[in-house]
Amino acid sequence: MNESPSFLTPKDELTTRAGRLAEGARARSIDAVLVFQHTDLFYFTGTIQKGVFVLTAGDPAESALFVIRDIQRAKAESRLSIIREMDGMRSLPGALSDMGIGGRPVLGLEMDVLPTKQYLSLKKMFPDADLVDASSLIRAVRSIKSPFEIEMTTRAAAMQRQVFAEAHSFFTSNAREIDIMLRIEARYRELGHQGLIRMRGFNQELFYGVVSSGASGDNPNYLDGPVAGAGLYPSFPQGGGTRRIGMNEPVMVDMVSNVGGYISDAARMYCRGTFPVDAARALEAAVAAQEAVVAHMHPGGSISESAEAARKAAEAFGLGDRFMGPPGRGVAFVGHGVGLEVDELPVVIERTDDVFREGQIVALEPKIFLEDHGVVGIENTYAVGPDGPERLTDFPEEPVIIE
Amino acid sequence: MNESPSFLTPKDELTTRAGRLAEGARARSIDAVLVFQHTDLFYFTGTIQKGVFVLTAGDPAESALFVIRDIQRAKAESRLSIIREMDGMRSLPGALSDMGIGGRPVLGLEMDVLPTKQYLSLKKMFPDADLVDASSLIRAVRSIKSPFEIEMTTRAAAMQRQVFAEAHSFFTSNAREIDIMLRIEARYRELGHQGLIRMRGFNQELFYGVVSSGASGDNPNYLDGPVAGAGLYPSFPQGGGTRRIGMNEPVMVDMVSNVGGYISDAARMYCRGTFPVDAARALEAAVAAQEAVVAHMHPGGSISESAEAARKAAEAFGLGDRFMGPPGRGVAFVGHGVGLEVDELPVVIERTDDVFREGQIVALEPKIFLEDHGVVGIENTYAVGPDGPERLTDFPEEPVIIE
Repeated sequence: MNESPSFLTPKDELTTRAGRLAEGARARSIDAVLVFQHTDLFYFTGTIQKGVFVLTAGDPAESALFVIRDIQRAKAESRLSIIREMDGMRSLPGALSDMGIGGRPVLGLEMDVLPTKQYLSLKKMFPDADLVDASSLIRAVRSIKSPFEIEMTTRAAAMQRQVFAEAHSFFTSNAREIDIMLRIEARYRELGHQGLIRMRGFNQELFYGVVSSGASGDNPNYLDGPVAGAGLYPSFPQGGGTRRIGMNEPVMVDMVSNVGGYISDAARMYCRGTFPVDAARALEAAVAAQEAVVAHMHPGGSISESAEAARKAAEAFGLGDRFMGPPGRGVAFVGHGVGLEVDELPVVIERTDDVFREGQIVALEPKIFLEDHGVVGIENTYAVGPDGPERLTDFPEEPVIIE
Repeated sequence: MNESPSFLTPKDELTTRAGRLAEGARARSIDAVLVFQHTDLFYFTGTIQKGVFVLTAGDPAESALFVIRDIQRAKAESRLSIIREMDGMRSLPGALSDMGIGGRPVLGLEMDVLPTKQYLSLKKMFPDADLVDASSLIRAVRSIKSPFEIEMTTRAAAMQRQVFAEAHSFFTSNAREIDIMLRIEARYRELGHQGLIRMRGFNQELFYGVVSSGASGDNPNYLDGPVAGAGLYPSFPQGGGTRRIGMNEPVMVDMVSNVGGYISDAARMYCRGTFPVDAARALEAAVAAQEAVVAHMHPGGSISESAEAARKAAEAFGLGDRFMGPPGRGVAFVGHGVGLEVDELPVVIERTDDVFREGQIVALEPKIFLEDHGVVGIENTYAVGPDGPERLTDFPEEPVIIE
């Protein structure tokens, strides 16, 4: 097992997280939150094992992880005070009752990810309980990152900086998108990339990201992101495809880094030969859109106004209809939270009352879809500090030109 | 987009699949099946887009794919006769009503994967409908493969044969498990591996598989498989770890191939130096267990008896307590169906009434957990033909010795 202390979630971290969830649960009159999903389990316990974490809202210090499989690994990886073995889910009502959660309790569930079958089984198991949705609460708690989480994300960003600095060497003549992508994948793995990238949304999935050139950029699909890519097969219609990259063609590299589960998200432009003038202008527009959001990215800053400012920045370049998607097919958001999942809160979007909060980690990805050059844009991951954002992906934003 | 004809699901394939689902639905008095999950969508329509496939049980030819995003890509990839654009899920009741599905219909849902939130929203949307679980029906339909699917799996197996034949060159001195794993990943991708491997089970996930040596084999965890591996981080506790592979140490390479979405699953042993005598004996036991299952693997053959025969084969070698896991911690199954997901039906397990059926594709993975040498075993993917199984992963089963 990998029990390297630097990748174990510290005990005080778990205590704080449980405390914040308990506070939110009490405000919603929830007696206990039952956490089943693997990413939430890892967040609240530091280990992903088969079982359930029971958060007791009244006294979060009494919260316990019940493990069906594997108790040894759970105990080696988790710094939680109370970890118990459980023979199966049928023992859950007894376990809750032993913890003083009985009568007609209000139980919070991760209804955005919990399968219907398990929900119906819990309904039978707890006929007198009021089962309510705790997913927005959990997502809100997870959206505020601790210094430990920001440090982990910074490590992921450092790995990304190194790979992006080396990626120019993968642009050999006649290379296809997928050739560049697979070399970046391998380099990431050499540096300790986790490999797997998690998304929370139903049907959402990502395999590192995408290398996209020319018409490959114009492939909107089921992915809730602006750039999906051509992909290799209809069975997984995203990522780099088999298109060969020519001279003077802008190429977007948008591939996610991951250290210890924590994600850093960035995109940069690469080009063999000369970066086209109108692509340079589109990149300028994207950077202007990014900076327009950044200006609002301080605690209390309006997310809606920031997204509106981004759109207006693109419009000022005459590229409003090509912002965040081909004309008429764009996505509504210009940024998203990242953490253990790539689709965390907040969503940077217009017409929301949400504000930026200290501790959020947000990836901004303003992208312009050009008819002749495919997608051109940029992506960076920021931590919202007390006085404004810190760019964690602190490497050059200029296109990388391969002679 | 990748519209290479060989990777598009043929129209007659879609017609047959819908017909089989409709037949099963009628037998359960289901009027329509609503298919939301991406893998099921791909199976029944040939494309993965945001939307819903409505299977009309009465006349499957009237079944339609409703696409929210992206209609262009759906039409390019799918050979389905009826594909319609839909502005959002709120239009679903109207769409069903237009198809003649009204009154108090019985609607089948994928309750094993559909999130609770969407289920509750469908309940509100269809207050008079009877919502029933169609997931076991869908899984049963998907477990019987067509000649097209067997051909795709055979292509995945051929890719796997090539990578497994080259893998010995990755066993350089001082290499860690992860070093070998990442080279296999890169080689797979060079040959056109899809990258992403899908699992259906809640919280189940796989990143290619595992390279496991010594004590790394003894890492049971949340994965419903016998060998998880150490992994790099507690955030993703499976796969190759940082353990350096020594001389005369058995190493299991169990890494999944994938062409066009279709999976081939195999494992082989590798060793620098001399393969230990007791490891060779354990491998002999694993192969004997495999052949014991194979003897039952014909249409109508008892799955329960096959799994029992596998266990008895291991017991005959005095290794019963180390079969499919360390003593007291083994998994119950010795094999599983593979297709677009790695955890398909059937499950090869004792105490089931299921029988093998023509068209099933089954991965058998008898593995022995030795105290001194970690996990030793084998895995192969078979297609159940009319007269018995065909081994698709038709490469040598002997340990690969690196001098």
